[in-house]
Amino acid sequence: MIVVLRPEYTQSDLKRIMAHLQEVGLTPNPIIGEEKTIILGIGGSEHLKVDAIDQLRADDAVEDVLVITKPYKLVAREAKPNGTQIDVRGAVIGGEEIAIIAGPCTVESETQLMLTAEIVAETGAKFLRGGAYKPSTSPYSFHGMGVEGLALLKAAGQKYDLRIVTEVMDIRKVELVAEYADVLQIGTRNMQNYDLLRELGMIRRPILLKRGFAAKVEEWLLAAEYIANAGNDQIILCERGIRTFETATRNTLDLNAIPLVKQLSHLPVIVDPSHGTGKRDLVGPMSKAAIACGADGVIIEVHPNPDHAIKDGSQSMTFERFQSLIPELGRIASAVDRILSSPVAVKTSR
Amino acid sequence: MIVVLRPEYTQSDLKRIMAHLQEVGLTPNPIIGEEKTIILGIGGSEHLKVDAIDQLRADDAVEDVLVITKPYKLVAREAKPNGTQIDVRGAVIGGEEIAIIAGPCTVESETQLMLTAEIVAETGAKFLRGGAYKPSTSPYSFHGMGVEGLALLKAAGQKYDLRIVTEVMDIRKVELVAEYADVLQIGTRNMQNYDLLRELGMIRRPILLKRGFAAKVEEWLLAAEYIANAGNDQIILCERGIRTFETATRNTLDLNAIPLVKQLSHLPVIVDPSHGTGKRDLVGPMSKAAIACGADGVIIEVHPNPDHAIKDGSQSMTFERFQSLIPELGRIASAVDRILSSPVAVKTSR
Amino acid sequence: MIVVLRPEYTQSDLKRIMAHLQEVGLTPNPIIGEEKTIILGIGGSEHLKVDAIDQLRADDAVEDVLVITKPYKLVAREAKPNGTQIDVRGAVIGGEEIAIIAGPCTVESETQLMLTAEIVAETGAKFLRGGAYKPSTSPYSFHGMGVEGLALLKAAGQKYDLRIVTEVMDIRKVELVAEYADVLQIGTRNMQNYDLLRELGMIRRPILLKRGFAAKVEEWLLAAEYIANAGNDQIILCERGIRTFETATRNTLDLNAIPLVKQLSHLPVIVDPSHGTGKRDLVGPMSKAAIACGADGVIIEVHPNPDHAIKDGSQSMTFERFQSLIPELGRIASAVDRILSSPVAVKTSR
Amino acid sequence: MIVVLRPEYTQSDLKRIMAHLQEVGLTPNPIIGEEKTIILGIGGSEHLKVDAIDQLRADDAVEDVLVITKPYKLVAREAKPNGTQIDVRGAVIGGEEIAIIAGPCTVESETQLMLTAEIVAETGAKFLRGGAYKPSTSPYSFHGMGVEGLALLKAAGQKYDLRIVTEVMDIRKVELVAEYADVLQIGTRNMQNYDLLRELGMIRRPILLKRGFAAKVEEWLLAAEYIANAGNDQIILCERGIRTFETATRNTLDLNAIPLVKQLSHLPVIVDPSHGTGKRDLVGPMSKAAIACGADGVIIEVHPNPDHAIKDGSQSMTFERFQSLIPELGRIASAVDRILSSPVAVKTSR
Repeated sequence: MIVVLRPEYTQSDLKRIMAHLQEVGLTPNPIIGEEKTIILGIGGSEHLKVDAIDQLRADDAVEDVLVITKPYKLVAREAKPNGTQIDVRGAVIGGEEIAIIAGPCTVESETQLMLTAEIVAETGAKFLRGGAYKPSTSPYSFHGMGVEGLALLKAAGQKYDLRIVTEVMDIRKVELVAEYADVLQIGTRNMQNYDLLRELGMIRRPILLKRGFAAKVEEWLLAAEYIANAGNDQIILCERGIRTFETATRNTLDLNAIPLVKQLSHLPVIVDPSHGTGKRDLVGPMSKAAIACGADGVIIEVHPNPDHAIKDGSQSMTFERFQSLIPELGRIASAVDRILSSPVAVKTSR
Repeated sequence: MIVVLRPEYTQSDLKRIMAHLQEVGLTPNPIIGEEKTIILGIGGSEHLKVDAIDQLRADDAVEDVLVITKPYKLVAREAKPNGTQIDVRGAVIGGEEIAIIAGPCTVESETQLMLTAEIVAETGAKFLRGGAYKPSTSPYSFHGMGVEGLALLKAAGQKYDLRIVTEVMDIRKVELVAEYADVLQIGTRNMQNYDLLRELGMIRRPILLKRGFAAKVEEWLLAAEYIANAGNDQIILCERGIRTFETATRNTLDLNAIPLVKQLSHLPVIVDPSHGTGKRDLVGPMSKAAIACGADGVIIEVHPNPDHAIKDGSQSMTFERFQSLIPELGRIASAVDRILSSPVAVKTSR
Repeated sequence: MIVVLRPEYTQSDLKRIMAHLQEVGLTPNPIIGEEKTIILGIGGSEHLKVDAIDQLRADDAVEDVLVITKPYKLVAREAKPNGTQIDVRGAVIGGEEIAIIAGPCTVESETQLMLTAEIVAETGAKFLRGGAYKPSTSPYSFHGMGVEGLALLKAAGQKYDLRIVTEVMDIRKVELVAEYADVLQIGTRNMQNYDLLRELGMIRRPILLKRGFAAKVEEWLLAAEYIANAGNDQIILCERGIRTFETATRNTLDLNAIPLVKQLSHLPVIVDPSHGTGKRDLVGPMSKAAIACGADGVIIEVHPNPDHAIKDGSQSMTFERFQSLIPELGRIASAVDRILSSPVAVKTSR
Repeated sequence: MIVVLRPEYTQSDLKRIMAHLQEVGLTPNPIIGEEKTIILGIGGSEHLKVDAIDQLRADDAVEDVLVITKPYKLVAREAKPNGTQIDVRGAVIGGEEIAIIAGPCTVESETQLMLTAEIVAETGAKFLRGGAYKPSTSPYSFHGMGVEGLALLKAAGQKYDLRIVTEVMDIRKVELVAEYADVLQIGTRNMQNYDLLRELGMIRRPILLKRGFAAKVEEWLLAAEYIANAGNDQIILCERGIRTFETATRNTLDLNAIPLVKQLSHLPVIVDPSHGTGKRDLVGPMSKAAIACGADGVIIEVHPNPDHAIKDGSQSMTFERFQSLIPELGRIASAVDRILSSPVAVKTSR
C-alpha cells in the first residue's frame, strides 16, 4: 500500500499515519521526495487492510492511497493457474468444449418449454435455460410461473437429458430452486445482493454469476469472491452487457472483459449475447465473436414464437435461426481449437 | 402506443399486428404514410400493455414501438398534484422545512454514536442516520454491528429525540429492522431487488429509496411504484450519485434529477452529497446546491473522528465542519423560501 | 413525425402546432386519444424537418416529438443495398478479403518505420499505418514528426508496396497530408469537427472515420453523412472503443456496433482493437472477435520495441506476436467465409 | 512516479527499468516487498516524464505505473493560490460578482438579437451570447449566419453595452471572430481539437473553454493547459453537462465539478444549465444550484419566441422567465456572499 501525503503535511501527520499503518499490521517506510512524500506500507494481511484503506484516505494529510495488490484472492488466476472446470452432471464448463445454454427467457407453458427443449437437445446443446422467477422493471409485468415453472424445467431436463439453468432472486427460495435446478443463476440486478451471494456460497450447486450491468470487472470478481469465501467455488461468470450512453443496442456487450477475466481469474466465463445486444439479428454475430475471443460458452434465448414471447421476444431466436447458428459456432470453435458437441437424435414429440 | 412497421411489411403482417393490439385491449388505427406505416393503439389499460410492448417489438415486421404514456401511475405527479408530505413522528419531509438527516456511515460503538447524535440534535436536525448492516464490495470488509447496532440507534434516537434512518439489506430482516428504525432505507445496490421492494410495500414505515447508481430516473420511479403498488405510499426518494466515466469524484451527483423528479412525481426527494461526491470538501457546496435546486432535504455523513471511521471516512464531515455548515444551509433555504429548524439545547453528555 | 401533446393542451395550441407542421411541408393529422392527443406529420422533405423537430420540442404544449425516419440518407444501407467496396490502389476494403492495416502508433525514425513496414508487408497485409501528427491529452507530449514523418511513410509505402493510412488533425494540412497518404484518417476526438469533415468531403481520397469515443452510432453515421454530403463517398468506418465506467481497459470496444452498422449502412467497417482495449494481450483475441462478428478489417499497432515506443507501447504488439497472429486471423476469416491474403516474399533489409 | 513490477520479473528486468528511469532524468529507488516489488522514480522534470509513463507501461515486466503528481502546472491552483480574475472590458469574471451571460443559441435576425440584447442588458447582465457558427450533428441543419451574425452581435454589444461571447469552430476563422467578439468560446466537441487550442493560446482575447461532453476533469484542465502553454492565461472554464446513461435530460450537469475544479485550478468556472439539462423548466433550478456550489457565473439561453427558435428552443427561456429568474439568482448569490449587478435602465427600442 502506498500512502501519498499532501504537500502541506506536518511531522506529526507523518507520525500519525505511520502509526496507523502499524496498527493494521503494515511496516511503514517513508520516502521523502522533492515533490511528494509517500509512505510505503509493506507486508500485512490483505484482509486487515481493506477497511484501513478507507480510513487512510479520510486522513486530512493524505492525498491518495494506492493499492497495488488485487482485492480478491480465491478467484484470482494465481490461486489455480490451470483454470477451473465445472462438471454439471457430466457436462463440463471451462474445458475444451464450448457450452451452449439455450431456452426461453421465461417459462410460459408446458408446450412452449417442451418444444424448445427438444430443439435445444437436438442441436447437441447440454443446458436448458428458462426463467421461473423473473425480475421486471415494472410491477405490472408478468413475474414468472414460480414453482410450477421450476417443475416444468425439471421435467424438460429429465425428458431431454438437459441440465437446467434458472435464476433465483429471493434469498428465501434458494433451497427451493436448488431442488429443481442444476445451475443457479444470479441476475445482473442482484450481483451485489451480498446476502444472496453468501447464501449461494453455502449450497452445493454451481452458480452462474451474471455481471452487474454497471459493475466493473473488479467488482464482479469480488462478487464471485463472496461466493467462494462462503464455501462454494463452482462459479461460472457470465458477461451480459453493460450500460453505457449508447441506446442503439439494449446494452453494450463488453467482450474485452472475456480475455481480461481469463487472465485475472481461473473461473470459466460465458457470454449472453441475447441480453448483451437486445436484438435478435445481432445474437448470431456476437455469439461467434464471444467464442472467437475465448469465452467458454454462450447462453442464448430461443423461443418457438418470439413475437408472442411474454418477455424479451425481440432478442429471442426462432428455432430455425438457432438451428442454423449452431454449426456456424462450431466452425468458429474449431478456428480457436475448441469443440462443440455434435447434434443428437432425440425422440421427438412432433 | 405507436407501432412503426418495417418498410417491407406485408398486408398479412398488418393484419396480424392489428389483431395483436386488439388482443391486449387496444383499438388499432393504421396510418399509411409515404415513408412509413404506423399503427396507433388507442385506449386499453396500461397494466395489460406492459408485456405487449415487448411482444410487438419482437415481431419481425415491426421496426419500433413507441410508448407515449408513463409506465408509473401511483407515484406520478398527476396522482397527487400537491405533493406528498411524510410525517415521521412529528417531523415532516416534503413540506416547507428542509430535512437534515445526519450521522455516521456505520455504527461502530456506543461512544461514537452518542457523541454524534448529540451534535446532530444540537444543530436542530431531526433525523439520525447510521448503518447496522453494511453492504461492502469486498467480503473481507466490516459488515456492521447488526442487531446490536440497531439497539444503539434506537437508544440514541430516544435519548436525543431523533428519528432513526437505517438500511435494510436482507429481506428476512425487514421486520427486525422495522422494530428499531423510523425510516427504512433501501440502498443503491438493492433498488431493483424486487422481492425486497414488495416486502417493504407491506410494512407500515416510511421508506427512503436510494436511486440505483446506474438507474435511469424512470426506473427509479418504477421501483417506487413497486412499493406503492404493494401498499405503502410513504416513500422518500434519495439521489446519491450515478456512475459515469468521471473518476475524479466517487460518483456524479445528478442534481438535474431533483427538479425533474419534482415535476414527474409527487414524492419528496432528498440528496446524499456524501456518497454523491465521496469527498468531504465537496459535501458542503453540494448540500447547498441540492437545496437551491429544490431538494426536500439532505443526508450527510458525520463522524467524531473521520480518519478513523471504519467506512467512508473520506466523505464524512467532522463535527466542527457540520456545525458550521448548518447555518450556511439555512441561508440557502431562506433564499428559496424554505426553512431549517433552529438549533436546540441538548442536555450534553460532554 | 409524431408530435405528442401535453394533457393540458388547448384548441389554440393544436391549431398553432398544425400550422407549424404545414410551414415545414408536412401534412398534419391529429389523433385525439383517451389519454393522449398526437399529431402525425406526414410527407415532407427530411432536410426541412431537421430544425423543425427542435422547434416543435420547444413548444410549451408539446410533450415530445418522435421521429420515425433515419436522419441520414446517403450512407444508409437502403442507398446501396449491396454495400460499398473501396479500392485503395488495388486493395479493396469491404469485399471478401479482410483488410489488415498495421504499423506503429507514431512514426519515430526511418529505422523504426522501415523495419515495421517490412514485417507488415511480409505477412501479406496491404496497409501501413503510422502517425505523423499526433493528438495528445497533454501539451507536454511528443506531437509527431510532421511532414518528415509523412515523407517516411510515403517512402516505406513505395518500398514495400503498402498503402498508407495516416491521421490529419489540422484542417489547414488536409492537402499536404493527401499528397503523402492513400487513406486519410479522422481521429476519435475530431469525429465532430464539422469543418474538417466537410473539407475531407471535398478531396479525392478514401477517409477512415474513427468513431468518437462518446459518439452514438447514429452520430457516427451522421458524421459520415457530412463527408458524403460534401461529395466524398469513399468512407471506411472504424470502431475504436467507447468511454464507459469501466477502467480495467482503456476503452470498451463496442463490437455490437459492427453487425449493427452493417445493417444500417452500406459503408465498410473495421475495428481498432489496440485503442479499443489499450492492452497488448487483448489485441489478438479482440481482432479475432472483430472478424467473427463481421468486420471488414482490423487496424493494429505494431512496434519493433514496444517498451520504447514513444506512444501507446502498452497496446502495441511485438513483431513476433503480430506474425503469429495473422494465421490465427486467417482461420477465423475462413470460418466466416472471408479470406486473408497470403504471406509475401519481401526483399529484406535485414 | 511508482513503477509496480509483475510478480515474475527477473533481475535483468529490474536493471532495464531502472536504467529507463535514469534515461528520463529520474532517480530510481527499488523497494522489494513481500508481495510486490516497486521502483520509485524520484525527481526529474514532469515534462520529460509524460511520454516515459507510456513507455514504462508497455514494458512486459511492468504491471502498472502510478503517477502521483498532477499533469498540469500552469492552470493548477498552486500556480496562483488566490485565483484568476478575468477583466472583460470592465466586467470581471472570477471576482465577487456572479457573471450572467445570456442570449439566443443562434443569431437568427437583427430583430431577434436586438430584442434579446435589450432584455439581457436591462436585467443588469453584462454579457451577450449568440452563435454565428453553429456545430450541428446533422449536415442538413442550419449552420449559422456566419460573419453577418458576428456583425449583428458586435452591433448589439455596442448598442447595449454588452460584452460578446461567441463560438469559434474553424481554426481558419479565429482572427475573424476575434475582431467581433470579446470572449471566444471553444465548444464541447472541440475541447480536444489541439490545433485550435494552440491557436487560441496565441491571441489576446479571453477564452471560454467548454468541457467536452465526455471529458474527465483532468482532461479538461489539460485542454486549458494547452491554451496557457501557448501563451494565453485568460481562460474561463464552463461546465455544460456530460454524457451518461441517463436519457431523461439532454446531458447530466456535473455540478460536483464546480467545487472540485475550484480546488484544483485557479481559473474561474461558470455553468451552462441550458445545455446541461436541455429542458427549459430545469434551467432556473440548476442556475441556482450552480451559484450555490460556487460557480462564478452562468450562461443561459434566452429567446423572444423559444418555440420558433431555429435551435435548442426547448432549452431556451422566454424573456418573462429570464427576467423573473435574475432576482432569484441574486438571493442565492447573497446567501453565498456573492453579488449580482443591479438592473439597468436601458433606452428601449420597444
